[in-house]
Amino acid sequence: MKEKKCVGIIDTTFSRVDMGSIALKVLRDLLPDYMIIRHTVPGIKDLPGEARRLIDSGCDGIITLGWVGKKQVDKYSYIALSVGLVMLSVLTGKIIIDVTVHEDESDNEEELKKIAIERTKAHAENLAILLKEDGEGLVKKAGQGVRQGYENVGPL
Amino acid sequence: MKEKKCVGIIDTTFSRVDMGSIALKVLRDLLPDYMIIRHTVPGIKDLPGEARRLIDSGCDGIITLGWVGKKQVDKYSYIALSVGLVMLSVLTGKIIIDVTVHEDESDNEEELKKIAIERTKAHAENLAILLKEDGEGLVKKAGQGVRQGYENVGPL
Amino acid sequence: MKEKKCVGIIDTTFSRVDMGSIALKVLRDLLPDYMIIRHTVPGIKDLPGEARRLIDSGCDGIITLGWVGKKQVDKYSYIALSVGLVMLSVLTGKIIIDVTVHEDESDNEEELKKIAIERTKAHAENLAILLKEDGEGLVKKAGQGVRQGYENVGPL
Amino acid sequence: MKEKKCVGIIDTTFSRVDMGSIALKVLRDLLPDYMIIRHTVPGIKDLPGEARRLIDSGCDGIITLGWVGKKQVDKYSYIALSVGLVMLSVLTGKIIIDVTVHEDESDNEEELKKIAIERTKAHAENLAILLKEDGEGLVKKAGQGVRQGYENVGPL
Amino acid sequence: MKEKKCVGIIDTTFSRVDMGSIALKVLRDLLPDYMIIRHTVPGIKDLPGEARRLIDSGCDGIITLGWVGKKQVDKYSYIALSVGLVMLSVLTGKIIIDVTVHEDESDNEEELKKIAIERTKAHAENLAILLKEDGEGLVKKAGQGVRQGYENVGPL
Repeated sequence: MKEKKCVGIIDTTFSRVDMGSIALKVLRDLLPDYMIIRHTVPGIKDLPGEARRLIDSGCDGIITLGWVGKKQVDKYSYIALSVGLVMLSVLTGKIIIDVTVHEDESDNEEELKKIAIERTKAHAENLAILLKEDGEGLVKKAGQGVRQGYENVGPL
Repeated sequence: MKEKKCVGIIDTTFSRVDMGSIALKVLRDLLPDYMIIRHTVPGIKDLPGEARRLIDSGCDGIITLGWVGKKQVDKYSYIALSVGLVMLSVLTGKIIIDVTVHEDESDNEEELKKIAIERTKAHAENLAILLKEDGEGLVKKAGQGVRQGYENVGPL
Repeated sequence: MKEKKCVGIIDTTFSRVDMGSIALKVLRDLLPDYMIIRHTVPGIKDLPGEARRLIDSGCDGIITLGWVGKKQVDKYSYIALSVGLVMLSVLTGKIIIDVTVHEDESDNEEELKKIAIERTKAHAENLAILLKEDGEGLVKKAGQGVRQGYENVGPL
Repeated sequence: MKEKKCVGIIDTTFSRVDMGSIALKVLRDLLPDYMIIRHTVPGIKDLPGEARRLIDSGCDGIITLGWVGKKQVDKYSYIALSVGLVMLSVLTGKIIIDVTVHEDESDNEEELKKIAIERTKAHAENLAILLKEDGEGLVKKAGQGVRQGYENVGPL
Repeated sequence: MKEKKCVGIIDTTFSRVDMGSIALKVLRDLLPDYMIIRHTVPGIKDLPGEARRLIDSGCDGIITLGWVGKKQVDKYSYIALSVGLVMLSVLTGKIIIDVTVHEDESDNEEELKKIAIERTKAHAENLAILLKEDGEGLVKKAGQGVRQGYENVGPL
């Protein structure tokens, strides 16, 4: 029945950068033999449920692309989002890459946009590696102080 | 046995705006062939259990309408509410739109009321789209900086 | 086998007001055909497990009566309590009314005692309504700014 | 197969007081017909998993004895510990008494040691009562402002 | 089918010290008859899912090696990580040692590196003891104020 492997992309209407399209482009390049499903939900607290639905429909891996506001309540929502996605990975064993950009990472809109784009690209690449090589594909980068959306800080 | 699709609305007696009636009006318009169940519970921590009961009784989607007080303890309750609803969506895969208004969003009572009304309407519309078009219905708004209850901030 | 409907009351030895006895009186009046079980545990983090045991022994609804200290660590315990009870309601679909009094709600001991008594009474009434009329019994009070232990603030 | 009732004690190497030995002495006195298993783990986040293993090996009740550092990160670990033990009690219905001493409860080492000893004794007694009399054994102390490791504050 | 006992090591590319290699060396020495699997994931929120996958593939014990940034959002991610791993241990009963180094533990890079190395070694030893002797192997160190990465503080 299931003809192709499948990967899911979920972003939000709350986000100020269309991160889903960026992830889509990267994953199409890196996972040419995967079916890619792209969905959008209103905000970050809607991501875990949608991820569950995409897993139920056959996805082997998921990338969620969240945008987190500046207020303390947004940070509490971030905790709920994070616990939800972590628990989904614990319950299903599926690879779920939980990407978030926090609106207070920069006051400069261009910089914030760049962070969102670079972080999305880098984590879409991570997802492709994990799907193709399991947890062994990233061992060569272990402890290297890799950052997504910023310069790598490198090892101590 | 199950003759109609069903959507559930749950609000609270704690809320200072009758958000349930607003959601009911929107969902009747947008989902004419759904049975709509409206329930009310005392406060936000009662929402996840009631949502579970409505799912058990056959609802395909739920909108919860919470009102969060100003005190730090109310914010901790907000974390519990949010984790509960996220976990319910993770465990069941059902569409659950978790709407909250925070009493400290505005000192102006009229403005606060307006936020509650507009946010409820906007998220009831989101629920209808998600129920009718799955996660594909909102892709066209991805990354658009959509806000509910405020002006949209737009994309960067 | 199960002859009567059952409701459970759980309070703590940590509390400075015997809230269990107050709930017992209200529920005996309002739910004359229910068996009522009253249990006591040491503190708030023991409430979710005891609630689970009462549900396992046949209770259809539970009221937990917690007393939360003034220190930040007590507030973290409050988060754990709240997540635990919310998850129990999500996992079982049972009606669980989670009542707490926070010792820092008032510096005046008489006032604090009054808050505890009134809040317990009001939520025992809520539990009875939810058990007898499901989530429909409180719809008439939706959005009315109802407070337990304080004056209602009313709708905006 | 299971010949004796069983109670489990779990403490940590992180703790600065050997609370496990204190609990062991109390429980041997109060539960002479129980098998008592005492285990030790590195720190508080290891307690819930060990509690699960002791429940799986047949324990009817558990007392965990945690020592929480002064730093904010220790408090976040406390949240994780607390959520874990609460969820274990919710999932299994077993009696789990979660005792913690916070290193910032006193600057005086002798006083801190005394708090740890007295709290452990008092909660080991609570566990014995709950195991022998269910939740009914503590009803007579409900609302009495009982504190473990400090003077009781009494009812209002 | 399963020929050897198995232990899993999971670290991150975010870390600034290659903690996985250190754990690998210790565990090879202490658990010569175990198969050891080493995997790497991007960041701390990816650890619980990978731990679940290694448990599913047959691992009897897991050590996760996380590096936590200085920002408040990193601390919230730490909560999600911790809750996820605690819940995984609660759900599976497997031994999971959750090691983290917080970048704000020291401003001195050499010191921070030393903390990471020593803590990893000490907890890899703990994991080996727990796997070989269950929870009994650490009883002799109970209450001894053991610290990993710092000098032990000793008992009171």
